[in-house]
Parts: sequence; structure tokens; C-alpha cells
Amino acid sequence: MASETPESTEITLIGAGTIGLSFAALHLTSDPTCLVTIHDKRPDLQSYISTHLPSYIPEAALESCTKRISYADSLQHAVKSADIIQEQGPENAEFKTSLWPEIEKHAPQNALLWSSTSGIPASVQVEGMRDKTRLLVVHPYNPPHIMPLLELVPSPSTSQDVVARTLNCWRARGRTPVVIKKECTGFVANRLAFALFREACSLAAQGVASVEDIDEIVTSSMGPRWAVAGPFKAYYAGGGEGGLRSFMEKIGGTVGECWDASDEGVRKGGIRVGAEWQEGVCEQAEDAYGVVDTGDRDAKTRRVLEAVSSRG
Amino acid sequence: MASETPESTEITLIGAGTIGLSFAALHLTSDPTCLVTIHDKRPDLQSYISTHLPSYIPEAALESCTKRISYADSLQHAVKSADIIQEQGPENAEFKTSLWPEIEKHAPQNALLWSSTSGIPASVQVEGMRDKTRLLVVHPYNPPHIMPLLELVPSPSTSQDVVARTLNCWRARGRTPVVIKKECTGFVANRLAFALFREACSLAAQGVASVEDIDEIVTSSMGPRWAVAGPFKAYYAGGGEGGLRSFMEKIGGTVGECWDASDEGVRKGGIRVGAEWQEGVCEQAEDAYGVVDTGDRDAKTRRVLEAVSSRG
Repeated sequence: MASETPESTEITLIGAGTIGLSFAALHLTSDPTCLVTIHDKRPDLQSYISTHLPSYIPEAALESCTKRISYADSLQHAVKSADIIQEQGPENAEFKTSLWPEIEKHAPQNALLWSSTSGIPASVQVEGMRDKTRLLVVHPYNPPHIMPLLELVPSPSTSQDVVARTLNCWRARGRTPVVIKKECTGFVANRLAFALFREACSLAAQGVASVEDIDEIVTSSMGPRWAVAGPFKAYYAGGGEGGLRSFMEKIGGTVGECWDASDEGVRKGGIRVGAEWQEGVCEQAEDAYGVVDTGDRDAKTRRVLEAVSSRG
Repeated sequence: MASETPESTEITLIGAGTIGLSFAALHLTSDPTCLVTIHDKRPDLQSYISTHLPSYIPEAALESCTKRISYADSLQHAVKSADIIQEQGPENAEFKTSLWPEIEKHAPQNALLWSSTSGIPASVQVEGMRDKTRLLVVHPYNPPHIMPLLELVPSPSTSQDVVARTLNCWRARGRTPVVIKKECTGFVANRLAFALFREACSLAAQGVASVEDIDEIVTSSMGPRWAVAGPFKAYYAGGGEGGLRSFMEKIGGTVGECWDASDEGVRKGGIRVGAEWQEGVCEQAEDAYGVVDTGDRDAKTRRVLEAVSSRG
């Protein structure tokens, strides 16, 4: 392939679940000359892709995108001429630590190596590799073909050049890559989201508000606010001329009381994963939502992102 | 006034700071016949209102809105024919507990009594009142003329009829009132937002990501997601056919690890209000944001809200 279209970026996706499909759609639509090779053990791979890809790609672009996909049964063949190798395989360290040394053997020396893991840091994944400078985590917020964020989480061994090339690649695709400075449990987006989610579970478990009411509170207040300005910027603006310092002076008392009440609520409610509160909250969500139309959700999310990025 | 336009709702606002102005704008623009009386001790009240109100109301509507504002120096005069009395005075319990018995003396018996407090529950505010059934908290998310949410927080004494009439009033104004089932510290929206904010402070203090990067993470992931679907609905959808139950089965391990890491991070970072971490984070915000253009923020927020509510 490389010899026919030398300027095309060759991207190999290892794993074609929903995240793999979404990334395939993202690459194919945002880089109109790139070539995507898919490697996945499922026996019906080609028909699976043809069936599901249309829901990720606008109809007008589907043919030109589909033409640029190829399939590789062997890992060696899949990676041999790749510029980027992106894995979204099973979330276990054994799989990943045995995968990368194999890839290292067969891939071009300059290829970027990305893992979509939501929890296994690059410093663990590189264990068996000769060259530990090439790999980093590129953690999407699902689904990546819609949500702009990509958390780039290098290990202490990842080279600056690899990070810089990865940043450039995502910026060129119009996405929002953010480099995380230190590997940490869950990376940043999930840590933030799960902190609010815990408080939501705690308040629902205490009967302060229903699951559905809590969702309505979020979509009519901090959701739209944080689509426009993150929490620091929002509270900085809320502090007026004195910024975040003034905000903390004026509202800090309430903030501290809320934090104390959270801690108490979490303790009282036993808000640990799998504890008693969980079934009631799951049931409430089921009663409230039945079957969620993710197509509608994605269409609205696209409009929200356009509304924020448009100027004037 | 009531005799001239018997159908008009008369709203008295006690306190004309930024929240009072924003509520005035909201009432005047969303109910085109209502009359607003403003009571505030500031000596330059009328010129203050004329100067600031134009930034809250579209130019085309300004004249017709301004005509429906009147001013009352005495509390007695301010409330005597009111249908709704809404206070956003100083945030201290003494002020509020001495205000309401005065209002009760002079206001029509059927008038709705609303407090915009962000922390003093109705059950405390009604202390000196003869009739404790009439008052509830109507807590906005700032600024209320933009953000749809109103948390209605009745005390255990508030009558169902008062809650129902308050709900109807806000629904008629096209807003999103949500009734909170139990009085609790900080109510729900701030509890949720401050839980995420604490995690953001903790990660910034640990040097995992900068203040600006954390904001960028939020605006490119959970912000737009939560503008469209709240956390429960989002994770319910993320669980596929098994809903939130499946989500917790599949991702619960990571969720639990993140919660544990949060607790540890908060302890290690001493993330209490006013502790050492705070100055560094405030400085970062100042360096990142300088002067925030809240007009631009509000315009974008309006577009986001339109994008979510529009169909098709």
C-alpha cells in the first residue's frame, strides 16, 4: 500500500470492538487519504465491519471511507508498514504486555504505538519491550468519533518526540488532545467524572433526589456550563475581579461544608462499588430510561460541540 | 398596580445584586405582562438598575421590560400586593429569619415566598413565622436568566400546594425546576459540582494536570456529554442492553479504583478549603484566564441550550 500512495498515513487498529470501529470512522473521515488496516480475531470480521461502520460514518462519505479499509489476519502483516498502531484489545495487562514486543518485532521503527486502555498505564505495558520510548496511552472519551477529548498519557520512558508527533496527529484531525503530566489511576477525565458520579450515587441512595432528577439537574446547570467553560474557569469568572481567590473567599465556606457533607454521605451510604445502594440506583435508572437512543444523543452532542466552537 | 392590570403577576424582589438583576430580567422577559417591584437599601437603586439591566435583557425588549419595573423604599409597600416575593438578600440566617415575619405581616396571604439562598434551608428561615407552610428555597444556578435549573427545596413544613404553584410558575417561564426531596447541605447542584471541583483541585495540586488542561478535558468530554444526558443516563447508555447494572459490572472495578485514588489524593493533597494547595491553584487560574468575557460565555451557553433542546 505504501508504495502506491506514499503520502497516505497507514493506521493499524488492533481490536475492532465499538471503540475500534469508532476510531476507524474518526481516522477515515478526518484524514481523507489515510489507509486503515484492521486486525481482529473475530471470524466474521469483514461482514461485522460492513454491518456496523455505516452507523459511525455519514452516508455521503461511506464509500470513500470503506475503500480505504483493509484487513490483516496476521499481526505481522497488519503492522509491517504502519505509521500508527493503535490497540483497543482486551483490558488486561497480560494481553498488552505480550502484544507490544510482537508488534515491536514487525513494525517500522518509526511507527507510533498507542494504547486506548482506560486503566493500564504505558509504564506497565512496555515491560517486555526493547525500546520503551515509543508507547503511550491515547485514552478516548466514548465514543471517540464524537467526543473531542484524547488523554495522552506517556510513561516516564516515552520520548518527547513521540508525544509531540502524537499531539500533532490529533490536532491535525481537529480533536482535543491533552497531555497528562503523571500517570495516575484512571487518568484525569474518569477521575473527575467518577467523583461527581459518586456524589450523585450517594445523594440518590440517601433519597435526596431521584436518579432522573439528578440527571435533570446536571443537564440544566453544570453540563451546559462545563461544555463552555471548565470548573476552574467557571468559578474563576464567578469570583469577579478577584478570580478564583475571591470565589474561595466568598463561597469557600459553602464549598467546605459541601465537601464535609459528601464525605459523611459517602460513609453513611456505603457508596462502594457493589454495596447495597447499587441495586436501587440501577433499578431507578432502568425505570427512568428503558432503551436510550444513542443516535439522538450523538446528534445532540455534535450540535452542542458546534455551538461551543462557533464564533460570534 | 393590581387594579389596573388584574391579570398581571406581581413579583417583588428583595435585594438587587447580580442575582436579583438576573431574576428581574428572567421574570420580565419570560412573562410579558408581569410587574416587578424592587426593594433594596442601596441609595442609587434606580440609576444602578438602569445602568446594569441592559446587559441582562435583549435590546429589543428593554423598553417594554423597564416600563414594568417599580421601586419601593419600604418593605411594607414593596410586598403589599405581591403574588410572589423572592429574596436574594445577605446570606446570613439572622437577616432572613427577621425578614420573613415582617413580610408575613404585610403580604397577601396567598403570596408565594421564595428564598434564593445557596445554603440556609427553609426550615431555618421560617423560625419566626406564624405560617411556616408558605416558604421554600428556590435556588438558581448562576446566572438564572441563562441557566435553566431552579432547585426547589421545601422545608418539611412547606405545603404541597405552595410547591405545586412554584413548579407551575417556573414551568410556565420555560425553566427547569426540580424539587429536592430532603433538605441537605448545599442542595444538589452544588454538591455534585463541588465534588468534581474537589477532584479537579486535588489532581491540579498533585501536578497530574494543569488547571487549564483540566478545564480543557472537561469542556471536551463530560461537559458536552452532560449537557445532553446526565451521569446516570450516560452510564446507563454506556452499559448497553444491561444498562447501569452492566456498566457497573464491566467498569465497576475501574470506578472503585478511581474512588479509592480520589480519597487518597484528597488526603495527601490536604484538599481542605484554605489549605496550602489553594494558592497555587488560584495562581494557575489567574495566569490562564486573566479577564473572562462572561458575555461570550453566556452567548455560547445559550447556543448550547438551544442545541440540546432543538429536535431532529
